[in-house]
Amino acid sequence: MKLWQKENTVTSEKIERFTVGRDREMDLNLAEFDVLGNLAHAQMLESIGLLSAGELASLQEELSVIYAQVQRGEFVIEEGVEDVHSQVELMLTRKLGDTGKKIHSGRSRNDQVLVDMKLYTRDRLFKVVQATDKLFSTLIKRSEQHKNDLLPGYTHLQIAMPSSFGLWFGAYAEGLIDDVIQLRAAYRLANRNPLGSGAGYGSSFPLNRKMTTDLLGFEGMHHNVVYAQMSRGRTEQAALTAISSLAATVSRLAMDVCLYNSQNFSFIILPDDMTTGSSIMPHKKNPDVAELLRAKTNRMKALPMEVTMVLSNLPSGYHRDMQLLKEILMPAFDEILDCLDIANFMLENMQVKQDLLNEPKYDLLFSVERVNDLVIKGVPFRDAYRQVGAEIADGTYEAPRVLNHTHEGSIGNLQNDLIRARMDEELESFAFENVEQSVKKLLASADAGIV
Amino acid sequence: MKLWQKENTVTSEKIERFTVGRDREMDLNLAEFDVLGNLAHAQMLESIGLLSAGELASLQEELSVIYAQVQRGEFVIEEGVEDVHSQVELMLTRKLGDTGKKIHSGRSRNDQVLVDMKLYTRDRLFKVVQATDKLFSTLIKRSEQHKNDLLPGYTHLQIAMPSSFGLWFGAYAEGLIDDVIQLRAAYRLANRNPLGSGAGYGSSFPLNRKMTTDLLGFEGMHHNVVYAQMSRGRTEQAALTAISSLAATVSRLAMDVCLYNSQNFSFIILPDDMTTGSSIMPHKKNPDVAELLRAKTNRMKALPMEVTMVLSNLPSGYHRDMQLLKEILMPAFDEILDCLDIANFMLENMQVKQDLLNEPKYDLLFSVERVNDLVIKGVPFRDAYRQVGAEIADGTYEAPRVLNHTHEGSIGNLQNDLIRARMDEELESFAFENVEQSVKKLLASADAGIV
Amino acid sequence: MKLWQKENTVTSEKIERFTVGRDREMDLNLAEFDVLGNLAHAQMLESIGLLSAGELASLQEELSVIYAQVQRGEFVIEEGVEDVHSQVELMLTRKLGDTGKKIHSGRSRNDQVLVDMKLYTRDRLFKVVQATDKLFSTLIKRSEQHKNDLLPGYTHLQIAMPSSFGLWFGAYAEGLIDDVIQLRAAYRLANRNPLGSGAGYGSSFPLNRKMTTDLLGFEGMHHNVVYAQMSRGRTEQAALTAISSLAATVSRLAMDVCLYNSQNFSFIILPDDMTTGSSIMPHKKNPDVAELLRAKTNRMKALPMEVTMVLSNLPSGYHRDMQLLKEILMPAFDEILDCLDIANFMLENMQVKQDLLNEPKYDLLFSVERVNDLVIKGVPFRDAYRQVGAEIADGTYEAPRVLNHTHEGSIGNLQNDLIRARMDEELESFAFENVEQSVKKLLASADAGIV
Amino acid sequence: MKLWQKENTVTSEKIERFTVGRDREMDLNLAEFDVLGNLAHAQMLESIGLLSAGELASLQEELSVIYAQVQRGEFVIEEGVEDVHSQVELMLTRKLGDTGKKIHSGRSRNDQVLVDMKLYTRDRLFKVVQATDKLFSTLIKRSEQHKNDLLPGYTHLQIAMPSSFGLWFGAYAEGLIDDVIQLRAAYRLANRNPLGSGAGYGSSFPLNRKMTTDLLGFEGMHHNVVYAQMSRGRTEQAALTAISSLAATVSRLAMDVCLYNSQNFSFIILPDDMTTGSSIMPHKKNPDVAELLRAKTNRMKALPMEVTMVLSNLPSGYHRDMQLLKEILMPAFDEILDCLDIANFMLENMQVKQDLLNEPKYDLLFSVERVNDLVIKGVPFRDAYRQVGAEIADGTYEAPRVLNHTHEGSIGNLQNDLIRARMDEELESFAFENVEQSVKKLLASADAGIV
Repeated sequence: MKLWQKENTVTSEKIERFTVGRDREMDLNLAEFDVLGNLAHAQMLESIGLLSAGELASLQEELSVIYAQVQRGEFVIEEGVEDVHSQVELMLTRKLGDTGKKIHSGRSRNDQVLVDMKLYTRDRLFKVVQATDKLFSTLIKRSEQHKNDLLPGYTHLQIAMPSSFGLWFGAYAEGLIDDVIQLRAAYRLANRNPLGSGAGYGSSFPLNRKMTTDLLGFEGMHHNVVYAQMSRGRTEQAALTAISSLAATVSRLAMDVCLYNSQNFSFIILPDDMTTGSSIMPHKKNPDVAELLRAKTNRMKALPMEVTMVLSNLPSGYHRDMQLLKEILMPAFDEILDCLDIANFMLENMQVKQDLLNEPKYDLLFSVERVNDLVIKGVPFRDAYRQVGAEIADGTYEAPRVLNHTHEGSIGNLQNDLIRARMDEELESFAFENVEQSVKKLLASADAGIV
Repeated sequence: MKLWQKENTVTSEKIERFTVGRDREMDLNLAEFDVLGNLAHAQMLESIGLLSAGELASLQEELSVIYAQVQRGEFVIEEGVEDVHSQVELMLTRKLGDTGKKIHSGRSRNDQVLVDMKLYTRDRLFKVVQATDKLFSTLIKRSEQHKNDLLPGYTHLQIAMPSSFGLWFGAYAEGLIDDVIQLRAAYRLANRNPLGSGAGYGSSFPLNRKMTTDLLGFEGMHHNVVYAQMSRGRTEQAALTAISSLAATVSRLAMDVCLYNSQNFSFIILPDDMTTGSSIMPHKKNPDVAELLRAKTNRMKALPMEVTMVLSNLPSGYHRDMQLLKEILMPAFDEILDCLDIANFMLENMQVKQDLLNEPKYDLLFSVERVNDLVIKGVPFRDAYRQVGAEIADGTYEAPRVLNHTHEGSIGNLQNDLIRARMDEELESFAFENVEQSVKKLLASADAGIV
Repeated sequence: MKLWQKENTVTSEKIERFTVGRDREMDLNLAEFDVLGNLAHAQMLESIGLLSAGELASLQEELSVIYAQVQRGEFVIEEGVEDVHSQVELMLTRKLGDTGKKIHSGRSRNDQVLVDMKLYTRDRLFKVVQATDKLFSTLIKRSEQHKNDLLPGYTHLQIAMPSSFGLWFGAYAEGLIDDVIQLRAAYRLANRNPLGSGAGYGSSFPLNRKMTTDLLGFEGMHHNVVYAQMSRGRTEQAALTAISSLAATVSRLAMDVCLYNSQNFSFIILPDDMTTGSSIMPHKKNPDVAELLRAKTNRMKALPMEVTMVLSNLPSGYHRDMQLLKEILMPAFDEILDCLDIANFMLENMQVKQDLLNEPKYDLLFSVERVNDLVIKGVPFRDAYRQVGAEIADGTYEAPRVLNHTHEGSIGNLQNDLIRARMDEELESFAFENVEQSVKKLLASADAGIV
Repeated sequence: MKLWQKENTVTSEKIERFTVGRDREMDLNLAEFDVLGNLAHAQMLESIGLLSAGELASLQEELSVIYAQVQRGEFVIEEGVEDVHSQVELMLTRKLGDTGKKIHSGRSRNDQVLVDMKLYTRDRLFKVVQATDKLFSTLIKRSEQHKNDLLPGYTHLQIAMPSSFGLWFGAYAEGLIDDVIQLRAAYRLANRNPLGSGAGYGSSFPLNRKMTTDLLGFEGMHHNVVYAQMSRGRTEQAALTAISSLAATVSRLAMDVCLYNSQNFSFIILPDDMTTGSSIMPHKKNPDVAELLRAKTNRMKALPMEVTMVLSNLPSGYHRDMQLLKEILMPAFDEILDCLDIANFMLENMQVKQDLLNEPKYDLLFSVERVNDLVIKGVPFRDAYRQVGAEIADGTYEAPRVLNHTHEGSIGNLQNDLIRARMDEELESFAFENVEQSVKKLLASADAGIV
């Protein structure tokens, strides 16, 4: 019946739109990694006799072609093809017929998505770590430049003790090390091979999972196949948790910038192209870029909660719900990379005001110095404290204005070199070069197959 | 005026109750660590000439006495004393007069709280890791016991492929390794010395921060003093994030248990003392313990968000808001340890049903086996898939019911030994013994001081 | 210097991309409402002598033209124009020169965005309420259809007492009433006029805010201009909170559907076009649509948290951070409307199994009936309870299988008519027709201006 | 076997501690309401012949005695009794034997908890609304007092336009109205009778649910019994959502106070007993109370998420997980009442600085005034804007410093009377007096029963 058919078509389209969602857009991020996963799986299938040497060679040739397409930005998921895995399989089957179909042996869509997501997440975490290191370097540079430029230090938003731009920039640099430690935990979760777990229950094929683990440069495999499937969601969660920690560091920095840019503080000057005017107030120079940086990074702090919402109380085993995780994770990588770039630009171009502490309202910043002078002369701390309190009360207090902070990490001894060394040590522990070599080797053996 | 005075007293009490909050209760958790921090600081002060050898010895003696009190559970924060640091200082001053006051030199309440919180968090994370390892061992044991007991495997909550209790228990075991990786990231953030940072801006005392770092067994120090202060909140956040990851693993396990215990699944039998009856239905045996385990661990997943709420958009520098973090962190440690203990008890005592897959409704679990048989005989995968689909449709399908899963991590090859080895490697990386030795040494030198 | 210029251009583009973000895309949602706001503001300006009658007429004519463009889907924000407000002003100025500029008198970009957002949110909440009512009607219809189809009732996921599809469908219907109550609270926050508050501090123009309030059909105005600005974020928060409550209802329904569709429950049959197969298991019919419905609605539950993240600890006064709220709110409206539509489709087309309770495993469902029979015969409840427990234990228990539930809201007396009446009452309280009439009148007076 | 028994005892205690949790402590909050629920249920049972008139009278007498105990603070849950419902039943049975047991007819523990929680939540929301109104009145009072005290208005944390303390206080007052609107939505969800729904599936007793609805003063009943059970969690969620909205208002106010108290703003003076000193800086007066107010209210914003965590993806039907909701909801009521009280105290006692805008740095605040002067003289807005921009740039700008803001809600026309009227209207819509009368009548009829 026509009426029914028409309705049915409308219905099917509606359902398809709902289920496919943003998957075809998201999946373009995976194309490169889907090819790598296919290359490793094919090589392994040949090694256990499920593909002939000739079949492997032709698969490698075609996969190399697709990989090159992806690199040139020419890979597309055709109309009516629901995801990247189907697209790659379609392209192989068009060229190679039955051989194209055979590559699906011993594999499920589930572990194909899983391995693609692991490779993708590993790659993007690498990029995030690199961008973090760039921001770190800028912070250290600015810290060194301004190690003699004093800044009021606040506690409770009250004027407290002398600080410096050297300390302020350096503090955020050191904070990034802790973010990198959390990024590394996430990286390790991403750097595990799930391939061979099928739909989460393995298979009767005599797969060699160690081989694909090595070919893809993973640190190791998710041994238990049920756990390999369970790692879906966890990997995303760990990545987003680390990203949100990093975002929190950037957002706090942006908050400081917005405050320090206020006329009531007036500690810094933002470059003109980072500020905007007002539609009704002709005198305004608003720190819009810093505000949006703050807002975007603050918003990212809710991301782990989104993943939690999707996963909560799902029993073990795959559920289609997992698909939605791509839409949460993938834009987050783009956003954090963008924010790190803008933050770096802002720090590179921000001007710092000098001689800030000469204003009389900052005299009280030096009260602790006065107390400590007395202590060093032998007055017990609690008594010195009371004496200076009395001086302030009766107006006899005079700010010493001479700082002699020498201990580790203080104004006069920033230890930026040690902080840099710690960051380098953390970066090294990722062993990114192992991954890069494995990927190169895998691609090279595919090219060799062409010959 | 009397009326005013009375009101003022009422007011002061109200304000005091509001500001002290649960601090006196929470601070009892810190007593042990406050003594350790004092011991290290005193030894350092003596080394830079701010305490005499005699003063140090008497301080060490009194601190040893207090430490023993804490160990015996006899330490109390007296009425009217607002926190543990004031209490310890009060006890020292009562006994030693001015010498008791001198220990505050070169230190602020802020870095005293900070160092106590670091030591406390480090200690509790250690306990959590130990409890996690205990649960892990139980899971591995049960996995080995039941490696031949098959279980339906589900995807989309639909009957999918054969699984086993061996796989199911083992999956949760392997998952705990990833939790331990995240706990270690948190542990590393906690294992950094903030002492010497004062109120977040250092001081003019020639402190030796390296020395207190070593004495307290820290992996290193937070170099930048502004960052040392900023690490407040971050340390708690990292710990709670790791705990919430672990809680998510336990909650998923509890969800499985609740489902498998339903008459509609009926895969497991819970011990009588873990179930309860109904006030109106005489036939019920409800899995209340598993449900509360699920609820408690699920609730914990919101904890990192609580910390985020408190910290969001606070400019750098200390704010009193930080105090509230204790109330979030400390009960969380108790709760997770409790949940791990109960989860372990549940797993130890849960019975597993056998021969589950003999029911005809589970025949379809074996359809992939049938497909793979055909593939191994040379039929291309996609064609085999279609053929078995047709067999199911026309009723000619017969479940093979013979499983031959041999690859890494599959039913027939659980690799629990490798999973165990990975866990051991992660545990070792904490180097807990270094911390223990440092603490012992610090206490021993204090005792020596007594003599 | 050329090099610098080139860099500067690159920089400016980067900064512009970062600050404009998705605003031009989001702002298309506001075009219709920006015209309405302009119409009301212009009419008011004329009434206080800041526009002449002729200027008003020409502005009304041009705004009518733009409104028609929006209705035809032809309105665009031109390249290089940063938002919808600039675009509309540009179009007016192109046609009317100085008169086009004058419409900005007594108004700031801030209160222009605010009024657009209020009108937009009010409109979309109306659409959400309508879609909720549609789903409600389907649920009531299905409840009536299946009031005699019994279903096992569970507590603790344990078989508990007899329920029915009539009760199950009806329960979700009644739940939607509570969602509508929360939607109405949000609607009331959206239905307040902020126009005239300028940048949050009012102005020296003798504006007639009562007049624009009436023209735009608002329930009233935000009186205090500082609060009008503060309502930014709150309005979005309230809307998203209500949406997330509604999403939670739908997600729970979807969870039930996924469970009831499992072979282990097998209570319902989903239409073919709502299920999918597996790439490796030929027998699967997976409830993907219900799973994605669950995932999407679950994810929405994190949305209020995103707004909270952005707003937390921002001092009063506008901040650019607010811009990001559009990206959170606007896609949420599209998503919830989509989910409500799919949920409705699923409920319309789902089949319900009959005679479910005949299976022996459901005998125990009737134990409470047996207890109550005894109670009605005079046995004290606690004794009857013990007696039936004993019968079950010694095998003498027989399920009565006759239900006589007559009280309000029970299986035999669903009261769907009263539930329907309550929903109607809630819907009426919105007084949507007032808004519609005001908008029509405002547009009509503009058209009259054309003549 | 003894060993086993001993272990079993230890085990049972551990399990009991885990399952009872904080329930006995929490349940004390419910005692008063459990008595009311019992009174209504008993009266209804008598009306349908399940209790004799004499039985009812004796139950009423005993319940009156218990109610009086609760009022005197003497009600306790005895050792070994797991909750308030068991305690009340125990007390009745001790006195009345079988009659005490009979009151459980037609009721389950589930709907008993439900009705207690509804009555409790309704009561506490009433108290929160009252405390909100008190804070509102203080804000209005202070707004009127300081309507002529100007304050810099900020956008982007940049000096923007003149504001006033009148506007600032009044803005927070008006904001509380929107909180009350949300509290009312929650109140309406709480004000529905679930009694008679049993364990969520009703019963075969001919209960008269309309009668208990009226006796307990509910606005109406949850008709559908399955939905009555589903409302558990939703009621809590709605209450906590409204509370967290209110908390957000208070937290923003506290953030303003902390900022305005900073020496860099210095707009207000906090009373001495709301500030504290520093352990190392003798000059500090820190706004600890405002900071803790901010922290506590910020933390509360995560509460709805905790409930969501517990409820997510639980299928319909009761689960023991619900018990945990008490621990989330009940302390939140205490906390928000505490915070509202402290906020009120802070606002009552805060001093406001005068003549703030005389400082030259605030000259630019008046630039919009200058623009508007020109506009009113006939210069098109965009041109006036450019002219004033030029004046500022070349130093010819002079701040007009005369404000003539007359429109609704602006500095010169705060409309606090209309804001007060709106609040009164919202408060009236709760119809609290209906509830109070019903409760009084129910208690009176019980007392009459005594005679």
